[in-house]
Amino acid sequence: MSQTTHPSSPNTRILFVKRPDGWPDASCFQTEACPEPECGAQDVVVQALWLSLDPYLRGRMNAGTSYAPGFVLGKPIVSRVVARVIASRNDRYREGDYVWGFLDWALRMVVPRGEGLYRIDPALGRPSLAISALGMPGLTAWVGAIELGKPTPGDTVYISSAAGTIGQLAGQFAKQTGARVIGSVGSDDKRDFVVKHCGYDAAFNYKTRNMDEALQELAPNGIDVYLDNVGGTTLEAALRHANVGARFPICGMISRYNETTDPGIRGMQLMVSKRIRMTGYIINDHVHKLPAYQQRAAQWFRSGAMQFHEDIVHGIEQAPAALIGMMQGEAMGKRLVQVAAA
Amino acid sequence: MSQTTHPSSPNTRILFVKRPDGWPDASCFQTEACPEPECGAQDVVVQALWLSLDPYLRGRMNAGTSYAPGFVLGKPIVSRVVARVIASRNDRYREGDYVWGFLDWALRMVVPRGEGLYRIDPALGRPSLAISALGMPGLTAWVGAIELGKPTPGDTVYISSAAGTIGQLAGQFAKQTGARVIGSVGSDDKRDFVVKHCGYDAAFNYKTRNMDEALQELAPNGIDVYLDNVGGTTLEAALRHANVGARFPICGMISRYNETTDPGIRGMQLMVSKRIRMTGYIINDHVHKLPAYQQRAAQWFRSGAMQFHEDIVHGIEQAPAALIGMMQGEAMGKRLVQVAAA
Repeated sequence: MSQTTHPSSPNTRILFVKRPDGWPDASCFQTEACPEPECGAQDVVVQALWLSLDPYLRGRMNAGTSYAPGFVLGKPIVSRVVARVIASRNDRYREGDYVWGFLDWALRMVVPRGEGLYRIDPALGRPSLAISALGMPGLTAWVGAIELGKPTPGDTVYISSAAGTIGQLAGQFAKQTGARVIGSVGSDDKRDFVVKHCGYDAAFNYKTRNMDEALQELAPNGIDVYLDNVGGTTLEAALRHANVGARFPICGMISRYNETTDPGIRGMQLMVSKRIRMTGYIINDHVHKLPAYQQRAAQWFRSGAMQFHEDIVHGIEQAPAALIGMMQGEAMGKRLVQVAAA
Repeated sequence: MSQTTHPSSPNTRILFVKRPDGWPDASCFQTEACPEPECGAQDVVVQALWLSLDPYLRGRMNAGTSYAPGFVLGKPIVSRVVARVIASRNDRYREGDYVWGFLDWALRMVVPRGEGLYRIDPALGRPSLAISALGMPGLTAWVGAIELGKPTPGDTVYISSAAGTIGQLAGQFAKQTGARVIGSVGSDDKRDFVVKHCGYDAAFNYKTRNMDEALQELAPNGIDVYLDNVGGTTLEAALRHANVGARFPICGMISRYNETTDPGIRGMQLMVSKRIRMTGYIINDHVHKLPAYQQRAAQWFRSGAMQFHEDIVHGIEQAPAALIGMMQGEAMGKRLVQVAAA
């Protein structure tokens, strides 16, 4: 065994200690000092750089009711983490390599035999993009907005959570097809953000506007594609304003994640009268498309044809509050917690 | 003008006189004697033979809330009607031709310029099949069960309203693909009927059984295709028992037609975790497929590879009660009202 020492700061991790009933709060998490990792034969030790905060993590806080396995009480929170290899006894990784994986929320950790790590090509863009615009969330936006949504020039594409990771990318992808792109967001700042920076033609703050009035105004010709990230009354309003033949890719229903009762989606009979196609999808089923997507998208970001905005919180001890805040809608773009200098 | 006389019985029609609030009852209809039709230049006069009774007619009793235009108060009910030409001053039709169209519920009527009539080829099968197994309802079953459902050998296909027009056909189509086919029905007689006569491997009476228990027992490996004709709690149960990647073609939500409130469909978040594709469809969009379907299906019925069961009520004055009864689930197979000898 070789001991890896890091004089900069003591190793720290975030444990999951209580299943939330509704919204999670600080009592669901515990920050604690932990031992420095030891690099056994074939192992890799990494320094975490960015922790990814995503809506689906709420589902993992339940006991096995979502599609991802539930978090274990007393164990660290796990999410996508971008890291740098700081010690390796594995031929596939060398010190300095950038990697990502579903890793513990810890400053430094051992990855047994390097399993579950994915190499990041820094030539494609800044390493943090590997878990957002150039990673699975980016592919989620692409598959939903383009492959399932199939927008054509003149179509109206409506995207909820427009300022989120998927929303900001999906809006730009849809815009490239010649569609009119509108979004709903949870604040006036986000409304301005998506119109100024994410290619949206228009957006509205669903917290201050009647959804039917806003959709009537912003989508006067009806909705041809609705990329659903939230479900609930937002989905119901989209059904009401959908055109015949509309496509509804469904990648999440965040509005339900924190609810303990399910009021149901009303107006589903509109699926028939409007011949709507609603497709739930999980991006893991599309992972084979990632390399081609990465090459294509990297070019767009490098050329400036597309932009991607990160909302970075600093310090691992801020991670629980940053996660809770993200779930309550405060993030402007993709929220990451940066826990060490890249 | 040439006067067409019919000494057999005075002409009679059924008017729509009251919009129902919930279930329709006898007071929504009025049977009255009416003049014999007169055949003007280019016109066609037909003798109705079979009136088609279909669930979607309930929607037309509302004031413009369904996909088909609403019935007009004081005017005759209109549905698919199979008829025989009894007088023609139109080159396209001759006395004795079998035709169908969306026609008034009347014994005899004029069809101005013969517009909206479709010729029936009696070589394909008995004329009544033109508005059921060899017509749009048959195509509805085919498009839903096969084209949208895409069953493969070993899949489990679940069909609600299994004993109805679409259900009895969809079950036989799905069975041809090598799938296991199960159905839900509203009586024990219908359960026996679909298993004995419509190729179903198993069925259950949803009025006497817990749906989750029945689906657990009859679809132990889960549901891969759910052909939805009813919506409501039946759709919710199908979501719970669906497999990953399940296809849900939705051709109707009859359970909602008579309800004035909409409780919503619960469990829609399962669309994401199970990657379900739900597709509402209306068969009018697929009408171009009808000729090829008719040739194929006619062969199956002629050869005895498939059967189609009609539930025939006799006499035009019985039509309102037959329609109300059909909506309440009493029909065994496709319900028709035969109003004259073929």
